[in-house]
Amino acid sequence: MEVKGRHYRTVWMGGSVVKMVNQLLLPHSFEIIELKDYKETANAISTMVVRGAGAIGAAAGFGVAQGALANEDLEKVVEIVKNTRPTAQDLFYAVGEVKKASAKGAEEAVKKANELADANANAGEKIGEYGNGLIKDGMKVLTHCNAGWLAFVDWGSALAPIYKAKRAGKKVFVWVDETRPRMQGARLTAWELANEGVRHGIIADNAAGYFMQKGEVDLVIVGADRIAGNGDVANKIGTYEKAVLAKENNVPFYVAAPLSTFDLKINSGEEIPIEERNEDEVKSMWGRKEKGDIGKLLVANESSNARNPAFDVTPAKYVSGIITEKGIIKAKGEEIAKLFS
Amino acid sequence: MEVKGRHYRTVWMGGSVVKMVNQLLLPHSFEIIELKDYKETANAISTMVVRGAGAIGAAAGFGVAQGALANEDLEKVVEIVKNTRPTAQDLFYAVGEVKKASAKGAEEAVKKANELADANANAGEKIGEYGNGLIKDGMKVLTHCNAGWLAFVDWGSALAPIYKAKRAGKKVFVWVDETRPRMQGARLTAWELANEGVRHGIIADNAAGYFMQKGEVDLVIVGADRIAGNGDVANKIGTYEKAVLAKENNVPFYVAAPLSTFDLKINSGEEIPIEERNEDEVKSMWGRKEKGDIGKLLVANESSNARNPAFDVTPAKYVSGIITEKGIIKAKGEEIAKLFS
Repeated sequence: MEVKGRHYRTVWMGGSVVKMVNQLLLPHSFEIIELKDYKETANAISTMVVRGAGAIGAAAGFGVAQGALANEDLEKVVEIVKNTRPTAQDLFYAVGEVKKASAKGAEEAVKKANELADANANAGEKIGEYGNGLIKDGMKVLTHCNAGWLAFVDWGSALAPIYKAKRAGKKVFVWVDETRPRMQGARLTAWELANEGVRHGIIADNAAGYFMQKGEVDLVIVGADRIAGNGDVANKIGTYEKAVLAKENNVPFYVAAPLSTFDLKINSGEEIPIEERNEDEVKSMWGRKEKGDIGKLLVANESSNARNPAFDVTPAKYVSGIITEKGIIKAKGEEIAKLFS
Repeated sequence: MEVKGRHYRTVWMGGSVVKMVNQLLLPHSFEIIELKDYKETANAISTMVVRGAGAIGAAAGFGVAQGALANEDLEKVVEIVKNTRPTAQDLFYAVGEVKKASAKGAEEAVKKANELADANANAGEKIGEYGNGLIKDGMKVLTHCNAGWLAFVDWGSALAPIYKAKRAGKKVFVWVDETRPRMQGARLTAWELANEGVRHGIIADNAAGYFMQKGEVDLVIVGADRIAGNGDVANKIGTYEKAVLAKENNVPFYVAAPLSTFDLKINSGEEIPIEERNEDEVKSMWGRKEKGDIGKLLVANESSNARNPAFDVTPAKYVSGIITEKGIIKAKGEEIAKLFS
């Protein structure tokens, strides 16, 4: 997407260097970080310099390609890259594909990693086109976390339909769940929407139900980190809450994700491992100080413990449909199987 | 309750001075602030130096008593004190009672304000005794916001049953919703529980549904800012979300509140005005800097707008029961009416 008049992807490769938007600095500053080997790339994934299912997948693919270019022990590279984030299906998919390609040489690994990144960007655009069909002029759409272009190589999943609707001249307003603990909504989704000129309002995650109850949410679209064969969806913590609330208030609840996010090896969401991150993410907050640099505050009682599950699983019964690059399907095993046949 | 070996109430009056725990500094430091006239007291309510239904009510009563002692125009005093927070029923109740008493002189106003504060503390203890009956040994209880002793004059509403259970020797664990945007859970409830030696875990509000889905929540107890004649409950934003999730997961959802929180003049929650606070509370966070003083960070995209409703209404159908100082009742018009007859 465009930033300050120039087109950027979220992550890309130039020579043997992986380049990416440093998402830890957004929305306060827009900077590109350069990672010279697979270890730096893996570290960028685990420290969330890059985050979001599609972007993680592309970065992981590039990381394995870096390992291949540097003649590293590929088994070890794959192990390290895979261990950065345990929930994201796109990561495992990309690592597997690039490793397979590397059997024919490092250049093939790089080519495959680039193909996967291109495919991710194209899938985002297609998802945008199909999802646009759900958005009527004047609608208010709620989204959780960031499944925009920063979460992909380009376009995004949940936000792509909004961008397509905006470009098609529709009026659309977006309720942005701030998405504690890491605030990807308030930081990244809000920044993306402001950047694209889409009207929006940030809300505490606690207020999503209130606005649904008031009839001020017409549609929910979220992304996904992994989708099981039966249509259960693992996504950012809090997604399950919004899905239950949407159902209770008769608001359609859609998940937007490319085919690479589906994991047909697992039959239900109960089999998806849920990453539990450091309690410091809950007890502290990062942001911009009044002086302008990034700082950290303790926002909880110091002597208390916190729990920090990073994802949850939304059972398929709460999902109105899944927007993919091949069209919109019901969250049902038969329809998912058909998509891959 | 006890702090550092001494018993404190949340708010009290000494001579013509109102004293209260400065809740803006908690959990980072425990300080008592002294307010010399009704304007300072009103300001302390609106800036949330004191917050929580019962504590606001007591502070408002003391504020009106200060006005009476200083021979101020009581109509004006009442107007200013009433306009500090639009949702809290306890505030209107206390202001009305103390004003009525002031007809017999300023000393009567002070006496009435003290009686109301005592009644609030006693109601909290009674609520604790009745609510204790719901808590079985080993239970995990989830609470939202802070309805502990800091929200009352003493004991609290939602936390009082937990304190009584703990003192009765039961093992109890509390899930503490951090409660964005103002983090009363992470700051105040966690501090209270740590202070009383009650085991607890702070969670992002987004994670409450996750733990309910996992079967790790046995009971939800929250407070209330106003309860309508039909049992609809206005409480901190996010309460409605947790109530819907509790119902979906078959977790009992109780509201704890003294009789002063009921507003029988209104028939349903739809008539309760919802305070919308400054967007800065969502876009910024306050907390303790690494150096130790309190600071503020921008945690959202600067150019974006935010919406900040401070309360929501939970329809009576989601409420398993209301724990009052006169016993536990169903959230039904008949039972509420009987309570006041």
